[in-house]
Amino acid sequence: MTHGFGPVAAPDAQVRGAAEQRQTQLTKPAGSLGRLEELGNWIAACQGVCPPKQFERARVVVFAGDHGVAEHGVSAYPSEVTAQMVANFLAGGAAVNALAAVAGATVRVADISVDGDTDPTVSQHKVRRSSGSIDREDALTQEEVAAALAAGRAIADEEVDAGADLLVAGDMGIGNTTPATVLVATLTNTEPVAAVGRGTGVDDAGWIRKVAAIRDGMRRARPVAADPVELLRVAAGADFAAMVGFLAQAATRRTPVLLDGVVVTAAALVAEDLAAGAKAWWLPAHRSTEPAHDLALKHLRLQPLLDLSMRLGEGSGALTALPLLRAAVATLSEMSTFADAGVSTADEATVDLVK
Amino acid sequence: MTHGFGPVAAPDAQVRGAAEQRQTQLTKPAGSLGRLEELGNWIAACQGVCPPKQFERARVVVFAGDHGVAEHGVSAYPSEVTAQMVANFLAGGAAVNALAAVAGATVRVADISVDGDTDPTVSQHKVRRSSGSIDREDALTQEEVAAALAAGRAIADEEVDAGADLLVAGDMGIGNTTPATVLVATLTNTEPVAAVGRGTGVDDAGWIRKVAAIRDGMRRARPVAADPVELLRVAAGADFAAMVGFLAQAATRRTPVLLDGVVVTAAALVAEDLAAGAKAWWLPAHRSTEPAHDLALKHLRLQPLLDLSMRLGEGSGALTALPLLRAAVATLSEMSTFADAGVSTADEATVDLVK
Repeated sequence: MTHGFGPVAAPDAQVRGAAEQRQTQLTKPAGSLGRLEELGNWIAACQGVCPPKQFERARVVVFAGDHGVAEHGVSAYPSEVTAQMVANFLAGGAAVNALAAVAGATVRVADISVDGDTDPTVSQHKVRRSSGSIDREDALTQEEVAAALAAGRAIADEEVDAGADLLVAGDMGIGNTTPATVLVATLTNTEPVAAVGRGTGVDDAGWIRKVAAIRDGMRRARPVAADPVELLRVAAGADFAAMVGFLAQAATRRTPVLLDGVVVTAAALVAEDLAAGAKAWWLPAHRSTEPAHDLALKHLRLQPLLDLSMRLGEGSGALTALPLLRAAVATLSEMSTFADAGVSTADEATVDLVK
Repeated sequence: MTHGFGPVAAPDAQVRGAAEQRQTQLTKPAGSLGRLEELGNWIAACQGVCPPKQFERARVVVFAGDHGVAEHGVSAYPSEVTAQMVANFLAGGAAVNALAAVAGATVRVADISVDGDTDPTVSQHKVRRSSGSIDREDALTQEEVAAALAAGRAIADEEVDAGADLLVAGDMGIGNTTPATVLVATLTNTEPVAAVGRGTGVDDAGWIRKVAAIRDGMRRARPVAADPVELLRVAAGADFAAMVGFLAQAATRRTPVLLDGVVVTAAALVAEDLAAGAKAWWLPAHRSTEPAHDLALKHLRLQPLLDLSMRLGEGSGALTALPLLRAAVATLSEMSTFADAGVSTADEATVDLVK
């Protein structure tokens, strides 16, 4: 089927070169800010300007959706929690709200496939109630997967058009680490037991049920693994398809994205298959405790910024890392150069030693 | 000699327990914020109140000092850079300034032993010009080491009295990774070659000179390794003694401290020997590329928050990590509880499954 996505052009290599050059002129030993320097150079390349500008409209979109497989005991929580948490996001009481406030970001919630009614302000892009139980049935119809991809794309367009200069995809959905693990294990050729984590904290019996569901889901996923849209339709869900559309479109619109946990990164794996090169616009914020997250990051060859044993989703890991991006922008854009500050350089020292 | 420091009482265990309890009631799976939860609990225990308050006066003190050993080719930069960088700090053009601004902290510079004149506003606590070349002579006299410890203590008192609720020690001093490595390698019984790093980026010939200087410094340090004050006097310098006094006094005044890189952490090793228990008030912000930094962190059994290949000093690593502490406070203090938000808990789910 036609989905409208294609290869994505890379961030501006010339501006990246200018940023690398500028880093060597700032009042610090070359390379001494380590990863912060790489981050700053990447941000400059994404913005197409050096020095880069501080983010003025960082925006989190939490994609909410339920999953039929949650009815089969793969999660520590009941599905009703998804809609309850959407209400909690809107009331400002969740982790994503607290973290966004300190990181200087704002939160949008998008009900893509919650199994219940949510506030009309967040359900404009709703595709259906829940998604099929992927251990035994397709998650979506062809029309639904197309609608969900289009929803994610539309949300990215709305945010970029409204001025977003940094996007974060977050997730909320009881049971969603099960399809995430099916996607990652299928696309990385990993045995289920090596990829399955505890999600929100399922017990031993639940973990065994989860492994079985993922094994069954992978059996259904493998035949369509080479077709990103069919893979989403058969073995993921509407929320995943929307995240894929969002991630691919953000890259197409030349807007940098901070990736969050295993659910978003599973969507990123598929989005890179759909829109080759998109991953150059994504930065992995952290490594969670979910084994499939690490597998997905390695497959994408993306190195996470933080490793703090987080496993909440919602965009929480990405928001925790967002201040590191602000630090990278601040150093690259606001520090003095050796010449401006009248500070001697290492070259001058070397000359002194030779004399 | 008497230095006036003694064992330090721990943060409030009862408040920590209350914070741990509160974490389980917030609208997230228990433990799902990982290290952020531990951080929040620690901050609550330091403040003696749960939920903890957001930091209102985070303060960086950059301890500046020169080292005689820098005249012997152990650094990529000439000693004159120390005073030039002090001027750069005051003009607001250094990494510490840019990072403090985005992290919501303010910067104080303390010239403890710069080998030149600095602005009078930063030299009230100056002990001497430079410190002795520790590969061949004592760094300080007995009077000077006492004065430097007292300077650090006075600076901590001034800052806490002015309302600082989070302190950061930073360092500036060409050649200062050489005494830092002498301290760490001596106190952790490590061979020089396994502890010596590139500092600001010394070349191969300089690295060989640095290893030799550290070997000679360690030969002078070992006989006094059990006496923290003598160790500082013989084999460190005035800036190190001031940092030691600052770190010990901050803990004594029940004020949490973010540790920065190898120089500050070397001082922390000595400060823990001087004031047992002080390390419970310190949080290691990051692991730098200096091998001695990792050795010191392991010896103190402190797990760094970030690992971003930074190696600048000035407090730059600590300031990069500061927003993680704000995130920890925000989640613990501002999230809704399950009861308040009307969200079902994992226990209720378990009951559902049993039914």
